[in-house]
Amino acid sequence: MGITIAIDCMGGDHGPRVTVPAALAYLSGAEDVEVVLVGQEDKIRAVLPTPLPPRVSIKHASEVVTMDDPPAQALRNKKDSSIRVAVNMVKAGEADACVSAGNTGALMAISRFVLKMLPGIDRPAICTVLPTMRSHVYMLDLGANVDCGPENLLQFGIMGAMLASAIDKKEHPSVGLLNIGEEDIKGNDVVKHAAELLKDSGLNFVGNVEGDGVFKGDADVVVCDGFVGNVALKTTEGLAQMLAFFLKEEFRRNWLTKLIALIALPVLKGFKKRVDHRRYNGATLLGLKGIVVKSHGSADAFAFQHAIACAAGEVRGKMLELISGRVARYAPALAESTHSHQESP
Amino acid sequence: MGITIAIDCMGGDHGPRVTVPAALAYLSGAEDVEVVLVGQEDKIRAVLPTPLPPRVSIKHASEVVTMDDPPAQALRNKKDSSIRVAVNMVKAGEADACVSAGNTGALMAISRFVLKMLPGIDRPAICTVLPTMRSHVYMLDLGANVDCGPENLLQFGIMGAMLASAIDKKEHPSVGLLNIGEEDIKGNDVVKHAAELLKDSGLNFVGNVEGDGVFKGDADVVVCDGFVGNVALKTTEGLAQMLAFFLKEEFRRNWLTKLIALIALPVLKGFKKRVDHRRYNGATLLGLKGIVVKSHGSADAFAFQHAIACAAGEVRGKMLELISGRVARYAPALAESTHSHQESP
Repeated sequence: MGITIAIDCMGGDHGPRVTVPAALAYLSGAEDVEVVLVGQEDKIRAVLPTPLPPRVSIKHASEVVTMDDPPAQALRNKKDSSIRVAVNMVKAGEADACVSAGNTGALMAISRFVLKMLPGIDRPAICTVLPTMRSHVYMLDLGANVDCGPENLLQFGIMGAMLASAIDKKEHPSVGLLNIGEEDIKGNDVVKHAAELLKDSGLNFVGNVEGDGVFKGDADVVVCDGFVGNVALKTTEGLAQMLAFFLKEEFRRNWLTKLIALIALPVLKGFKKRVDHRRYNGATLLGLKGIVVKSHGSADAFAFQHAIACAAGEVRGKMLELISGRVARYAPALAESTHSHQESP
Repeated sequence: MGITIAIDCMGGDHGPRVTVPAALAYLSGAEDVEVVLVGQEDKIRAVLPTPLPPRVSIKHASEVVTMDDPPAQALRNKKDSSIRVAVNMVKAGEADACVSAGNTGALMAISRFVLKMLPGIDRPAICTVLPTMRSHVYMLDLGANVDCGPENLLQFGIMGAMLASAIDKKEHPSVGLLNIGEEDIKGNDVVKHAAELLKDSGLNFVGNVEGDGVFKGDADVVVCDGFVGNVALKTTEGLAQMLAFFLKEEFRRNWLTKLIALIALPVLKGFKKRVDHRRYNGATLLGLKGIVVKSHGSADAFAFQHAIACAAGEVRGKMLELISGRVARYAPALAESTHSHQESP
């Protein structure tokens, strides 16, 4: 069975110059995939070879959502934007997933409006995969839900576990709750209550995971409120940048250290490749009735390719079916969420 | 004027074996300081030379708070613990500050009970200094206050700024609010309200700082809720450990890479020294009517020495006077805090 992915070519810092070559590069290694390049046709054609390569088609969309467009306006006023057209294709069944490096808020608002949420899920959660000492971890939410109730954290646990199942073929991925201590008594009221819900959820819940446990690989899935997740993710990005900066400075200190850098280059490259954040590009908007993957706005072609691979993997792993099935089983527990904490818009 | 520091010698993973040599090492470089070694006299004497070195005295305390002691019990039942006796010395004016590597919760409970809070401050906040690309940053709270109201974040801003003033002699240190975006509209209700309070505070408030901005050095002081701060700090610790682990693995891959490691050793050592977390050991419990510094429980002598230096620096910089003065000026704004959000015990 072939997979069709709609690609918003206009999003991100670089637009078609990056998204189109990334799509072509991805296709060369994925025989079962075809892509629909969505956006302003002339700009897309300008970076495409003629005739069109196999498994590539173009869908014109006259408008572009900019990074500054408020989500609500992008939704209301730009009905022919590349994001909207790509998401519409998923809704219409013309594509199995869509990928965008555009405005996150707009992508979320449009996806939610067009695709709708799964029953029992309030809002999309942003989930990404991060490397760990053992393997990797799915972490959510990373910023879509800044005020979470316990039920939201339960929803994240279910969705994250099903994503891990779909991608890694793990039947019972372990789920941890990000907290400030491993003991049950730690944390605020929301996480304490969430722990109770997760214990009763039938998921493979392993309890609290501390910040350092995320990278130790204490759990396959780590759930947290979007504020905490966003801060944690960006703080680690900042630390990684600082460490890289310091390491470079040490190697550039004088001619001797520069010589050593030259000698150590193969090892340093191996290290760099291993921790290359571009290989982890692609955050999934979970909870929608469709697969939507968000790429970093600053992604280059290599990184954007990984976001496309991420979307294709979710289609192949039947993530949506897994989540829908599981969410349906927990419908009573999840329904409570509508009566309790409401997140910010 | 001489400075006297009371040292809880029994705390931490290693007890007197680490704390006593650290104190002696610190004294050799600080002519104006004397230390009182607090704890079980026989155990302290066992690792001390005879006769006692100059500027060193011992104060016997018969009990030890263990890492497992619940704070309330440590407070109620161990009235002759080394922590209690050391804090009592600060209260009685026999010491200008105390340092402990012991049970954080117990240290906090005992300090709060014995020393009391400054008027207008609800609970101690834990503040530590972290390296940044530019210099360093004071970050608080790191776990003492898991549910903060906007007024708590204002208190943190004032106390952090005064700490930065005392240590770095900056008259108007910049204060940032940890958030998930730089724009005013970002974040949850608590941070949005806190931003308004900080804007009107007379502090050099520079607005929202994102996670990566912490290490870029976007502000001299970064304030956040203790849950978020604790997670962010530990997540970065976890990332640093993972990166070090990967780097080692790359250098240990085969005989050639091992040879390269040998050649690169001086540079790698320079890098390691620069990011050595032991140099940042020592978290201050702010908001008390006395100076109390908490060392990592796992600290070695080098790290513990830095915690002592941290306490001495705060005495020299008259941190307490600076904070008290500033807090008194903001008394009306801070008083609101008693009517609003209450933190967990």
